[in-house]
Amino acid sequence: MIKLVAIDVDGTLTDKDRLISTRAIEFIRKAEKKGIIVSLLSGNVIPVVYALKVFIGINGPVFGENGGVMFDNDGSITKFFSNEKTNSFLDEMSKKTSMRSIFTNKWREASTGFDIDGKDVDYVKAEAEKRGLVVFYSGYSWHLMNKGEDKGFAVKILKEKYGLNYEEILVVGDSNNDMPMFELPVFKACPANATDNVKKASDFVSSYSYGEEIGEVFSHFNLL
Amino acid sequence: MIKLVAIDVDGTLTDKDRLISTRAIEFIRKAEKKGIIVSLLSGNVIPVVYALKVFIGINGPVFGENGGVMFDNDGSITKFFSNEKTNSFLDEMSKKTSMRSIFTNKWREASTGFDIDGKDVDYVKAEAEKRGLVVFYSGYSWHLMNKGEDKGFAVKILKEKYGLNYEEILVVGDSNNDMPMFELPVFKACPANATDNVKKASDFVSSYSYGEEIGEVFSHFNLL
Ligand SMILES: [Ca+2]
Ligand SMILES: [Ca+2]
Ligand SMILES: [Ca+2]
Ligand SMILES: [Ca+2]
Ligand SMILES: [Ca+2]
Repeated sequence: MIKLVAIDVDGTLTDKDRLISTRAIEFIRKAEKKGIIVSLLSGNVIPVVYALKVFIGINGPVFGENGGVMFDNDGSITKFFSNEKTNSFLDEMSKKTSMRSIFTNKWREASTGFDIDGKDVDYVKAEAEKRGLVVFYSGYSWHLMNKGEDKGFAVKILKEKYGLNYEEILVVGDSNNDMPMFELPVFKACPANATDNVKKASDFVSSYSYGEEIGEVFSHFNLL
Repeated sequence: MIKLVAIDVDGTLTDKDRLISTRAIEFIRKAEKKGIIVSLLSGNVIPVVYALKVFIGINGPVFGENGGVMFDNDGSITKFFSNEKTNSFLDEMSKKTSMRSIFTNKWREASTGFDIDGKDVDYVKAEAEKRGLVVFYSGYSWHLMNKGEDKGFAVKILKEKYGLNYEEILVVGDSNNDMPMFELPVFKACPANATDNVKKASDFVSSYSYGEEIGEVFSHFNLL
């Protein structure tokens, strides 16, 4: 049985305009009252996921920067990775390509966010790979990460923290940066708006989108 | 008629556990669809109010640190005050009293948050006043501000930005840090959980609390 649910934020709890589903909030609160541990795993910066934790009332730790930083229940922030190499790479590439910093970097600690014109993507990806860095697009912004820094890493942190088996964990996500979670032997669910590879990897694909699927997903796995 | 609503967050949109009211979110979205401009004015740090703006879908600028910093619709952050003097004061006082820094200060830019034991409050307040600084408790945490740095200042910024008269503005709040808004000749409303002085200053006191009053307040002022 599921004891912990790890949920992506953008596109999984929010819509195309990034508006959070109020129904998703209510179902999360309901599942928590039944004793389910909930965590958020987002590409967002840690103060944003901290705000979501506080205002939604998330009872588990939350992760920002695709798993690179954790905000725990005791108020501590744990940085599992550094943004030193990612920031240096951005500095270098911004001098020769359209790769440029975004304002949320002031709140990033373990990765680097950026904007870039389409023409430079392949070159920058290749250069990043040479340096052991990873480039991907979350569906909302571009991210430069360290190797091994992903949501799968974060789910393993949760598994150890709560002494769980993989089959006691459900992950919910909608896009490519969720695949590292979906590749673990956990239960997997997604909204109707998910990418094809996420749907293919899912145990349950909801007929609802953008956060409105949370109730159906939770019902399917007996969390309500 | 009301064209803009400026709303406090903690205790006005949230409950005692800081959980945001999902009904408040829905009513804010409904009022915005009718063309009402909404702003949030909070003691919280700017990335937290930025998160609220994004996920609720606030159509106006939002203010953190009790009005000292604004996050505008174009993504710019405007610092109207500095945390240089407030940080220096905290450094000094932390050596001789229980006044101590809190973790959200890493995201503060125009003021300083702190914790303190009750026995030291009067002394620290007196010392702050000698240096032209202001100490107050928001109901959630202690704040050290610059003189003139308050939510009334923020409402005036909004008034000028949108070319409004005071009587086209409604403010909603629940506690003492909202009084600088309530002292302006704007319309004023509060939840049932508001402090006595806020209730006394209000044009409308709702019978509901902790965000659940937003629908009744908005109905009363014909915003829905
Ligand atoms: Ca997503
Ligand atoms: Ca909770
Ligand atoms: Ca308040
Ligand atoms: Ca407040
Ligand atoms: Ca909106």
